[in-house]
Amino acid sequence: MAKEMRKPIILDVNHMMADILGFQYGIASEQVDAMARVAAHAQAAVEKNRGTGWLGWMDLPYNQAEIVAKIEKIAARVRKDFDTFVVLGIGGSALGPIAVQYALNHQRYNDLSAKMRGGPRFYVEDNIDPERMASLLDVIDIKRTCFNIITKSGATAETMSQYLIISDLLKKKVGDGWQKHIIATTDQEKGNLIKLAHKEGFDLFYIPSTVGGRFSELCPVGLLPAAVCGIDIKGLLEGAAAMDERCKTPNLWKNPALLEAVLQYIAMEEMDANIQVIMPYADSLKYMADWFCQLWAESLGKNVTRKGMAVNVGQTPTKALGVTDQHSQLQLYTEGPYDKVITLLKVESFREKALIPHGCEEFADVAFLGGKSLNALIDAERQGTEYALYRSGRMNQTIILPQVNAYTLGQLMYFFQMATAYMGELLDIDAFNQPGVEESKIASYAVLGNQSDKYMKKAQEMKERTESQKRYLL
Amino acid sequence: MAKEMRKPIILDVNHMMADILGFQYGIASEQVDAMARVAAHAQAAVEKNRGTGWLGWMDLPYNQAEIVAKIEKIAARVRKDFDTFVVLGIGGSALGPIAVQYALNHQRYNDLSAKMRGGPRFYVEDNIDPERMASLLDVIDIKRTCFNIITKSGATAETMSQYLIISDLLKKKVGDGWQKHIIATTDQEKGNLIKLAHKEGFDLFYIPSTVGGRFSELCPVGLLPAAVCGIDIKGLLEGAAAMDERCKTPNLWKNPALLEAVLQYIAMEEMDANIQVIMPYADSLKYMADWFCQLWAESLGKNVTRKGMAVNVGQTPTKALGVTDQHSQLQLYTEGPYDKVITLLKVESFREKALIPHGCEEFADVAFLGGKSLNALIDAERQGTEYALYRSGRMNQTIILPQVNAYTLGQLMYFFQMATAYMGELLDIDAFNQPGVEESKIASYAVLGNQSDKYMKKAQEMKERTESQKRYLL
Repeated sequence: MAKEMRKPIILDVNHMMADILGFQYGIASEQVDAMARVAAHAQAAVEKNRGTGWLGWMDLPYNQAEIVAKIEKIAARVRKDFDTFVVLGIGGSALGPIAVQYALNHQRYNDLSAKMRGGPRFYVEDNIDPERMASLLDVIDIKRTCFNIITKSGATAETMSQYLIISDLLKKKVGDGWQKHIIATTDQEKGNLIKLAHKEGFDLFYIPSTVGGRFSELCPVGLLPAAVCGIDIKGLLEGAAAMDERCKTPNLWKNPALLEAVLQYIAMEEMDANIQVIMPYADSLKYMADWFCQLWAESLGKNVTRKGMAVNVGQTPTKALGVTDQHSQLQLYTEGPYDKVITLLKVESFREKALIPHGCEEFADVAFLGGKSLNALIDAERQGTEYALYRSGRMNQTIILPQVNAYTLGQLMYFFQMATAYMGELLDIDAFNQPGVEESKIASYAVLGNQSDKYMKKAQEMKERTESQKRYLL
Repeated sequence: MAKEMRKPIILDVNHMMADILGFQYGIASEQVDAMARVAAHAQAAVEKNRGTGWLGWMDLPYNQAEIVAKIEKIAARVRKDFDTFVVLGIGGSALGPIAVQYALNHQRYNDLSAKMRGGPRFYVEDNIDPERMASLLDVIDIKRTCFNIITKSGATAETMSQYLIISDLLKKKVGDGWQKHIIATTDQEKGNLIKLAHKEGFDLFYIPSTVGGRFSELCPVGLLPAAVCGIDIKGLLEGAAAMDERCKTPNLWKNPALLEAVLQYIAMEEMDANIQVIMPYADSLKYMADWFCQLWAESLGKNVTRKGMAVNVGQTPTKALGVTDQHSQLQLYTEGPYDKVITLLKVESFREKALIPHGCEEFADVAFLGGKSLNALIDAERQGTEYALYRSGRMNQTIILPQVNAYTLGQLMYFFQMATAYMGELLDIDAFNQPGVEESKIASYAVLGNQSDKYMKKAQEMKERTESQKRYLL
């Protein structure tokens, strides 16, 4: 791999703008300027509350030296003692670890020999599908496996079910010392898992009380799995700090995350772009798109009251992969409704070069590829897509990563987190809660037959509905 | 695994309907009835053209005995002679093979021992990312690998670039007989690959000229990779045939794909649901969602002229995974804008059972999970989500698979293909072309420096644009 580049990531929003894209399709710079004061307020509000409330993640790029040292120490032990490392977590406890691993490690990491890998195989189990659990148990040797249980509350039904299954298996297969196979990452004071960890003597990391799940990648939730897989976690934090510096100005033409929030606000609120597609042109960033989709959807999809009226806001994030999805989604993006913004991720320098040999000289449309590289081809296709979107008047923007490495990835994640926080301010919503998932949780527990009053009442309510509907089944 | 169940899949649209969901949120049965005649016309138009034009895929469930026999013969040879099988293809040549493999084989198939697997490791390379190509070459032994090159035209730049790289490597590493490592799947008469295959003597399968990429899973494009991985391809075809039978009636209350098309048409055209989320509650169906997203997006995202006006139609499909994405997307679905339909996939009987042991008796909210199963938990959470969507007035529907197996999967894929074809008729568009991707392709070739006139002209046009925009970079 080339020497790691420590350069800033760049936000290119030319194709969002009316003077480039056409006045009927793009955002006028005057529309942006008109929001300068509101944007400055949003930036100030976020800055003022740095480190407090739910803005604890703004402190994570700094002052973690002690935690990082402990993570590296435990990670070194895991790398030495275990063949396999499994994260048991869901949502924010899973998406970050997956995204960072896939971005920064070998793309076929688990398929490498132990020697080439240099660390344990890595799995993130973020579902409770019984077939998936069985398939995991088929391919790991539990006696040689370390499990990282991640749940802030210790009450996440999915993760705690997995804990019950795995701890039972460990007791049976490993016996004495089974606790050494578990590392808990949870709240320092509250919840079940911290109590369990103290009782059993698990190795233990804390999720700061001011850091919510989808903003937790740069605390031990993300840092421990990354370190276990040999990733440069200090580089991630330094990248985040570099982006944080760029977000310290209230000037929206200087603060990339603030400009991003303003543009998406205008696109969504004034131009009916209720969809944002995130489309990395790099396989390594494929799961970064999933991570972004949680951040954007769960933070901004909210029911709010404005002037006494209930309003439902939120842009639906969806992901695509360049060039792959040119062959599945681009038709819709260029010819379908004008209802979306396309966010492309461009990588300037890949960590590998793949030359295309000459051949097929009898076929002009194939032969001309010979002597070029996949690097040139993927970039040409990215430009082709960008141009096709431009020509069809579709708002699009590009985030340019000089290279995919810990430093640029730290910047990218922090950029999206800041843009989300600013967007919350612009929309006048709480970007850090998720009240809309409660109903589903209560209903599930009711179905499972939990005997608390709350659930029994819900079970009755659900039953009443169920009886009335037997009709539309084909 | 339990004995394979050969039961019909069921479409449950109760939660789409006004009399269940509430009249301000759902579709009135009168709205559906009002479309009965139009729907019958759509069904008749599709039926009338069965097997012709681009409706060749309607013949695939039938009359493939000879092809299936040849596929099984070649597949048996591949299983015996090779350690690894790699599909080189993109779009429709990749999404189907991935979806079927993941649905019907062990979820950690490549991680199993060769003995447990019983067939070669399986990779589908549907991108041209240089890091990904390098990572593949790191983990396969090319001397023990068989490559299936799939491109109907033989002019797909991505696939033919991969062909140039791989054939060059095979010549160098394998030498004489390298051609035995390649199987070509392409058009019987037209294009480069058929000529190459004849010249080099590759094993060869045909894509019928009446079958487009995204409708090609049940021809050798999908059947060969499936057979190589030990999947029951006859079961897939029989499932498709069973669904085809159910679609032979023009009565929309009897024909599930027709009802589906009508409901989505009303949702999209009359109720602003420009998004459809497909959310399987089963890891095995995760990539079936990707396959559906291509089918729906590329077929229906179209620029059409209606009464002399250009109109842009198309519902943006996006995917989520239950229960995982309850922790990332559900907040948006229940509280965000009323702009989507959620399509849940329910599996009645998983092929594995995972019991949750008792434990954590000191924590009531964890202890109550003990003695239940992951099977019960995932189903309770699905019901919880369905109920939360219902309570918040969000249109949702459920496709019920008695079990995930070849027979139900064949039904499901054919169901979606028929719904797409009907929807094309209802929207009065051509569901089988993709003119919107041409601009991007030409622009890419222009960037790559292809010297044909067409591309040089485009390069000039692109250059003119590029020079005018240097401004909005942060």
